[in-house]
Amino acid sequence: MPATSMEELVSLCKRRGFIFQGSEIYGGLQGFYDYGPLGVELKNNIKAAWWRSNVYERDDMEGLDASIIMHRMVLRHSGHEATFSDPMIDNKKNNKRYRLDHLLKDQKADVQAKVAELMAADADNFAALVATLNAKPAQASAAFKEAGVRDPFSGEVGDWTEPKPFNMMFKTTIGPVADEESYAYLRPETAQGIFTNFKNVVDSTSRRLPFGIAQIGKAFRNEITPRNFIFRVRELEQMEIEFFVTPGTDEQWHEHWLEKRLKWWEDQGVPRSKIEILDVPQEDLAHYSKRTYDLMYDYPTLGHEEIEGIANRSDYDLGSHTKNQDELGLVSKVEENNDSVAKLTIPHPETNKPVVPFVIEPSAGVDRAMLAVLSEAFTKETLENGNERIVLKLRPHLAPIKVAVIPLARNKEEITSVARKIKAELQGLGLGRVLYEDSGNIGKAYRRHDEVGTPFCVTVDFDTIGQNAEGADDSLKDTVTVRDRDTLAQERVKISELSSWIQAKLR
Amino acid sequence: MPATSMEELVSLCKRRGFIFQGSEIYGGLQGFYDYGPLGVELKNNIKAAWWRSNVYERDDMEGLDASIIMHRMVLRHSGHEATFSDPMIDNKKNNKRYRLDHLLKDQKADVQAKVAELMAADADNFAALVATLNAKPAQASAAFKEAGVRDPFSGEVGDWTEPKPFNMMFKTTIGPVADEESYAYLRPETAQGIFTNFKNVVDSTSRRLPFGIAQIGKAFRNEITPRNFIFRVRELEQMEIEFFVTPGTDEQWHEHWLEKRLKWWEDQGVPRSKIEILDVPQEDLAHYSKRTYDLMYDYPTLGHEEIEGIANRSDYDLGSHTKNQDELGLVSKVEENNDSVAKLTIPHPETNKPVVPFVIEPSAGVDRAMLAVLSEAFTKETLENGNERIVLKLRPHLAPIKVAVIPLARNKEEITSVARKIKAELQGLGLGRVLYEDSGNIGKAYRRHDEVGTPFCVTVDFDTIGQNAEGADDSLKDTVTVRDRDTLAQERVKISELSSWIQAKLR
Repeated sequence: MPATSMEELVSLCKRRGFIFQGSEIYGGLQGFYDYGPLGVELKNNIKAAWWRSNVYERDDMEGLDASIIMHRMVLRHSGHEATFSDPMIDNKKNNKRYRLDHLLKDQKADVQAKVAELMAADADNFAALVATLNAKPAQASAAFKEAGVRDPFSGEVGDWTEPKPFNMMFKTTIGPVADEESYAYLRPETAQGIFTNFKNVVDSTSRRLPFGIAQIGKAFRNEITPRNFIFRVRELEQMEIEFFVTPGTDEQWHEHWLEKRLKWWEDQGVPRSKIEILDVPQEDLAHYSKRTYDLMYDYPTLGHEEIEGIANRSDYDLGSHTKNQDELGLVSKVEENNDSVAKLTIPHPETNKPVVPFVIEPSAGVDRAMLAVLSEAFTKETLENGNERIVLKLRPHLAPIKVAVIPLARNKEEITSVARKIKAELQGLGLGRVLYEDSGNIGKAYRRHDEVGTPFCVTVDFDTIGQNAEGADDSLKDTVTVRDRDTLAQERVKISELSSWIQAKLR
Repeated sequence: MPATSMEELVSLCKRRGFIFQGSEIYGGLQGFYDYGPLGVELKNNIKAAWWRSNVYERDDMEGLDASIIMHRMVLRHSGHEATFSDPMIDNKKNNKRYRLDHLLKDQKADVQAKVAELMAADADNFAALVATLNAKPAQASAAFKEAGVRDPFSGEVGDWTEPKPFNMMFKTTIGPVADEESYAYLRPETAQGIFTNFKNVVDSTSRRLPFGIAQIGKAFRNEITPRNFIFRVRELEQMEIEFFVTPGTDEQWHEHWLEKRLKWWEDQGVPRSKIEILDVPQEDLAHYSKRTYDLMYDYPTLGHEEIEGIANRSDYDLGSHTKNQDELGLVSKVEENNDSVAKLTIPHPETNKPVVPFVIEPSAGVDRAMLAVLSEAFTKETLENGNERIVLKLRPHLAPIKVAVIPLARNKEEITSVARKIKAELQGLGLGRVLYEDSGNIGKAYRRHDEVGTPFCVTVDFDTIGQNAEGADDSLKDTVTVRDRDTLAQERVKISELSSWIQAKLR
């Protein structure tokens, strides 16, 4: 049974060291989070699973790790300078600023309906209503006031300004002189680093169509109202693929990636039944997109929200960043580019003539993935003895700690030395983190490891060293107890067979 | 035989897809680099080796992954707002700006000597000379002009301004309103994310002294003159440990970490004989440091430069970020802090009274590590047949590609299907990237994989499928040729035994 509310996840994440508020000791920085000892392992395991599936297990993919700070020309020609913005609206009474669509979504149904009525828009089509508000700013300001849109901070009806676009890219200055030429952007998506390196990758690997470039890395968005824990943040991490295909084969590749990605989510414990596939309506598509599937996961408290977008971006991106645009027969409408020094083409597989490939982009968020994985794994159970336990039923490859090795007596050298030896041996298997755990009593340790999703606890006790309380019991000598997180079954396993036993269960 | 010049490394890195100039198609962005298909693998392998050794294989370490953008109060109380600066000096003739010490280092010996003489400083102590120049800016400006310090850009003697400090932190604005309160910094080091999360980690893990927190992540420094390829960049990646110890035990832990870190470098193929240990003289120490060892690796072209710093930071950092400083008996001199909401203490292991621990910080650069690892691995050899080859003799655990599986005929389905099966099986061993390689003829493939350090090439040929040109030779059926990167030996191995053969060699 997955989590039923965001609060229980937030509480577990803080208590057990998965996720902390960023800069917390100075009051926190809104929209920034730090991943703690277990969070960093879970996050790294998700990233490794994605890389394995999308780079290692395919024969048509290369990896990349481009820089975060990018030349302003990259973000100008990508279209982000002009269009990567959200509408914002201010309350003149207290100078609070809101993202228009978020503010509207927070209002009661009758207020929303009234705004729609005043704008002569369809109240049931939220996206269209927001578009109308942006298109008619003066009318929007009046409608918000007349409909009685309340400020969530003060709780009172606001004195609303006209909405205006706010560019969400973080800017900074490079080099010691701050002038017109020296600003640059923190990338708002990892994708642009892939497009700008297209030629470098082709030249150094001799790839031909179809092939893809995969990248995992941080991206930054100056959200007006970050919220919902790690769902909408200002510093995020993305796992993006740009898959380059021959024009005309793009639609079948789009379907290929939709299937592949749903399968991948299933392998991480996020079932298809919890993901709605939104075939984004033509009128809501980004200007570069021929067609987009949004995977909408049913988050606790939030409901269905985007966990991944899979877009057919046509030849827009490479077409926007290439020189000699006029000679290339581009399908998409691009802005003129006199700044690029590279021709971003590749030989057509049949004609061998230079062609700008189409791009299929499966783009997933690491933080949103983590939230979904945690939601699905979160389980509250009532045990046979009537006790309740929280257990994270994570897939073993995602578990932050694979095995906890627990010496039953922390000060008995014969026991601790065996435990340490077992820890070192299991660690050497290369399965991930194995913890030597002597921080409390055994019951507490089990509860803690249930809550953080450790698949197995190995306990070294007096029987292990042949010193049972009721006298020596040689049949249990050199064995340990292995406790299974999910079944709670406890099994005695010979130390000499432990590595292969664990390996068989975790692989 | 390691690389003899930086140029040969730069050239290999670009040609083979390790490292590209950032934003290259728009003329490049100075001090920013993108890691290509092989670079990302090598970089990830270095990071994984560090994490394994410092987190997984120890019982006294936790991991962390904090955000890049941090609250301005963090960087104020860490001391970075006031002191994280380099002296810069301008040439009024062409408005070029330089880092003072870099400019001086680039001058001929007699010019340097003349500057020292005019400043009445010791010409043999470069650090002291720079300090004197900074302390007496008017005199410095005059000395630079009189001694004939040349502008590296124009080649002519410059009209030099007085040196002044330039803060190297990148600033940005958070949220939609740019005002006094809304700026924040890109972290200049990952360390601060560890200090600010000290309490969170202790609370969620029940750690007691001694223990450490390890982190790998990006850091940003607005270098005035980035240079020397990936050695001095504006966007870098760090691998940092903050190891918290009981005051009084700090000196022995400092020695422990010096030994551990030298051993680690050795395991990555960077021998002790190439690293000078600089016991930083008291007068050159940072204000927070009780003692610092700088590990100076002998880079090609650059000579001995810092690859890692191991500092005893006393109780300065936690002492600077804690509230109630006066009650804590701090040893180090800290600025007053009325902004922190947390008391950063931990029970003393013997007295159980709250104590601010001392910190030992081994801090290494990922990019500098990569450059050193590449330098040591780079080998030019003359083969028995007189041909020359370039081979990267990387330790197998660092090699970007572990095995290349090569079908001898790319269009013969009986051969390619066997090759693909072998690729999938070897990939499943979890050793890292295994490449299905059908991009050229076998000789070219071998040369390419020598240059990128692939330990083994597995070739599937006609013998494998029992179709030798001279008629069927059943003795070679179901075997493949395995070529060793270093010895060039070619061995026939049974397909059924290949996995264990490769595993034994690579583990």
